[in-house]
Amino acid sequence: MQERHKDGTETPNLGDVPADEFRSAMHRVADLVCDYLEGVGEYPVLPSVRPGDVARSLPESAPEEPESLEAILADYKGLIEPNITHWNHPGFFAYFANTGSRPGILGETLAAALNVNAMLWKSGPAATELEERVCDWLRQLLELPPEFRGHINDTASMSTLLALAAARHRLSEYQIRECGMGGRSDIPALVVYANEQVHSSIDKAMIVLGLGHENLRRVDTDLAYRLDSRHLEALIREDLAAGHRPIAVVATVGTTSTTAIDPVEEIAQICRRHDLWLHVDAAYGGSAGICPELRAQMKGLESASSIVVNPHKWLFVPMDCSVLFVRDKEGFESTFSLLPEYLKTPENTAEAASRPTDLMNLGVQLGRRFRSLKLWMVMRAFGVSGLRARIREHCRLAQLFAGWVEADPRFELRAPVPFSLVCFRAVLGESGEEQDRLNEAILARVNAAGPVFLSHTQLEGRWVLRLSIGNLRTTEKHVVQAWDLIREAWESVAL
Amino acid sequence: MQERHKDGTETPNLGDVPADEFRSAMHRVADLVCDYLEGVGEYPVLPSVRPGDVARSLPESAPEEPESLEAILADYKGLIEPNITHWNHPGFFAYFANTGSRPGILGETLAAALNVNAMLWKSGPAATELEERVCDWLRQLLELPPEFRGHINDTASMSTLLALAAARHRLSEYQIRECGMGGRSDIPALVVYANEQVHSSIDKAMIVLGLGHENLRRVDTDLAYRLDSRHLEALIREDLAAGHRPIAVVATVGTTSTTAIDPVEEIAQICRRHDLWLHVDAAYGGSAGICPELRAQMKGLESASSIVVNPHKWLFVPMDCSVLFVRDKEGFESTFSLLPEYLKTPENTAEAASRPTDLMNLGVQLGRRFRSLKLWMVMRAFGVSGLRARIREHCRLAQLFAGWVEADPRFELRAPVPFSLVCFRAVLGESGEEQDRLNEAILARVNAAGPVFLSHTQLEGRWVLRLSIGNLRTTEKHVVQAWDLIREAWESVAL
Repeated sequence: MQERHKDGTETPNLGDVPADEFRSAMHRVADLVCDYLEGVGEYPVLPSVRPGDVARSLPESAPEEPESLEAILADYKGLIEPNITHWNHPGFFAYFANTGSRPGILGETLAAALNVNAMLWKSGPAATELEERVCDWLRQLLELPPEFRGHINDTASMSTLLALAAARHRLSEYQIRECGMGGRSDIPALVVYANEQVHSSIDKAMIVLGLGHENLRRVDTDLAYRLDSRHLEALIREDLAAGHRPIAVVATVGTTSTTAIDPVEEIAQICRRHDLWLHVDAAYGGSAGICPELRAQMKGLESASSIVVNPHKWLFVPMDCSVLFVRDKEGFESTFSLLPEYLKTPENTAEAASRPTDLMNLGVQLGRRFRSLKLWMVMRAFGVSGLRARIREHCRLAQLFAGWVEADPRFELRAPVPFSLVCFRAVLGESGEEQDRLNEAILARVNAAGPVFLSHTQLEGRWVLRLSIGNLRTTEKHVVQAWDLIREAWESVAL
Repeated sequence: MQERHKDGTETPNLGDVPADEFRSAMHRVADLVCDYLEGVGEYPVLPSVRPGDVARSLPESAPEEPESLEAILADYKGLIEPNITHWNHPGFFAYFANTGSRPGILGETLAAALNVNAMLWKSGPAATELEERVCDWLRQLLELPPEFRGHINDTASMSTLLALAAARHRLSEYQIRECGMGGRSDIPALVVYANEQVHSSIDKAMIVLGLGHENLRRVDTDLAYRLDSRHLEALIREDLAAGHRPIAVVATVGTTSTTAIDPVEEIAQICRRHDLWLHVDAAYGGSAGICPELRAQMKGLESASSIVVNPHKWLFVPMDCSVLFVRDKEGFESTFSLLPEYLKTPENTAEAASRPTDLMNLGVQLGRRFRSLKLWMVMRAFGVSGLRARIREHCRLAQLFAGWVEADPRFELRAPVPFSLVCFRAVLGESGEEQDRLNEAILARVNAAGPVFLSHTQLEGRWVLRLSIGNLRTTEKHVVQAWDLIREAWESVAL
């Protein structure tokens, strides 16, 4: 890039891309974003691309000379946009469907421009205080008592890892923070309990924290795939008898496989009895807790030690935004806080006196993006009534679909539908294996068609299809279309 | 929000904010972003706001009814933008200065709209392959051999945590991943070594991994604050004699306090001798490695087991973007990978056959934002020549400032200037304490003025001022201004 001077000479411009070029590119991007969201439904949800196709279209090395923003945006439009999986597609029914909603995109765009790193209050006052405030808005909607303090992490995987690190740190007699777990014969095996269908992020936390994968006890579930508290109690007693040390239970509100809701209140009683940390993984289901009638299904949430809720799942905030609520903020902070000299706030200043939160003390990452901006914009643009209406609509659509499945003898529901996920399968065939192959073939056929994308899981060793509703653009029409495609696939595959 | 129908009735619109309102808001945001970047220099770098001021201006609860995008953006402009610390300000010389450059903002905006979660290749083909490709572009520029594979994490704190987790996992005889470190008398204390001025993220990794804060050995430094390899060797021998188990060394290329460059080549030899993992924290300094003459200062980088480089620091990419290069990708993956049923790719498909990367296997987080898009756009918009020219210009400005400090008897340089950070202090006063108070007062006065923001550190127990250059908008004029303000402050404070 050259800068042209009044005398006609040119020298390299060592600042940013020139302002006028950027302004026009930014408006072009504004239109690209709007066009994308208005037209996303016309793409197949899954791109028809094979591994390596995109890589082969990309130069092997970075360009030596600057390229124009126009050329770059043209490549974005031609090569990138068509070759992603369209999570914003109304036919995206896989995993947990989510949405990068329009107000959220506005927030992300502004956050990118501000580029605040709110590691310290001082390095981002509004970012720090907005984060605390919007997390408190969410706390109120979830009917959690005021001692719960929320902060934002990137993902539930991190939020859960931090919660279990705090649970371990609470065992003050072992001084694990300072002394570690190596070279110690005094520390017993530290055990964590969870629903056997718990999310893989709990497994990862066990591995990373050095607690060991095998010290995650998988508790049996009842017929609705909810954690069986009698089995939990029995496992805890077994571990105690064996000289192990139970430290935490992870209860799930909305398991990934079936959105089952563990009996949090019963689990909380067991945790009190044995002095265990209770972490609630409500990454998906927690969002529904803003509707009082759905919150009523989560009794005991208020008794947790920590709760993770991901607004980037079902509160329409673009990736990434995971809120971790902790009851004992001070104890939580003492797990992680470290203050190197170059980040110390001089003692005699106003901010030192009033001790504001420094977000860097609330976890592993020193760097903190301004993630609350998008959450704030989404909550305001939809309003509480709007957020509730949308969650209720997704639940209504799931019930509708579940009703169709139940009414059709070729299919069966495989789990209750407390939220917006339906687990079902086709039932033709004598053996379980035959049914599995049938369902696998149906899934492959449905997903290859283009307009919808479903996923699957295994329940009791059998293939089960998952239809997950959670995208703002999904309407009844799209759910009907999914059902039509599923039945068509049944006919091509089974007949 | 209501949807108006042709017959004049209105029903709640349960989709996203209407397309036309959004398009006009998106263009308004495009202008807000452009105006902000063009005018950011007119703000004081640090807002004149006290803890609690912003919070008091925010409603205590979320609004019940939707609010207009216009109202929300007006609040953004009035309440948020003026009350952040302006990391994009040309006078931001604190911590490590960085920039959310214009092409990076374009990339972040598009990524927010796509809202891809590239946890699996299948859930984001272009996002996965672009990430691998741009990391490889960076690998080539850093003159690393092709066996190094890069992927993007949010922050260096996470990249380093992952690297040390992999170092621990490499001790296969202990099966820590499976069995954990509790209830084990066979595992010795596991020890990690680093420059005594190592970044706090290493301390956090030790704590979180359960290795223990005290098992991070702080190696003495030479007069230039570089790790002393003889002391490293001596510490390792002491630990071995004591029955501890050395597992890794963290070498730093650009320490946070002074940007000292540890002798990576010597350290690599020691690591080979003792079979240790060598992680290089080049979060800041690594970016400079794209200039051959600066890369020459980092000899031995190519011998590392893992290297972290943060393009969100000095490659002008908005937060967050931290690239972790690992030499043994397969071993690294085996530290973390877990594949629950609902994420398994059916065996008989094309993508299963060609085994593309699933980014979720490369760390803790399941969710993966499309971070490579902004890095791609920045590398293309500036070109390699442009990136190099900007880094060289920042280093030139730092040398210029260092020269002024050296020529002025009231000040002294406190550390070499290999990159773009200058550590210096005022020298008036008899005792070290007096000098500390003088420098503290100078810093307070300079930062209160508005146009610049400096930070400080401690070296050998004494206060030292840091002027860090790394923002694209910073020109010689701003460095001159900082120097003027520092000398004025000296006069008001010292005389």
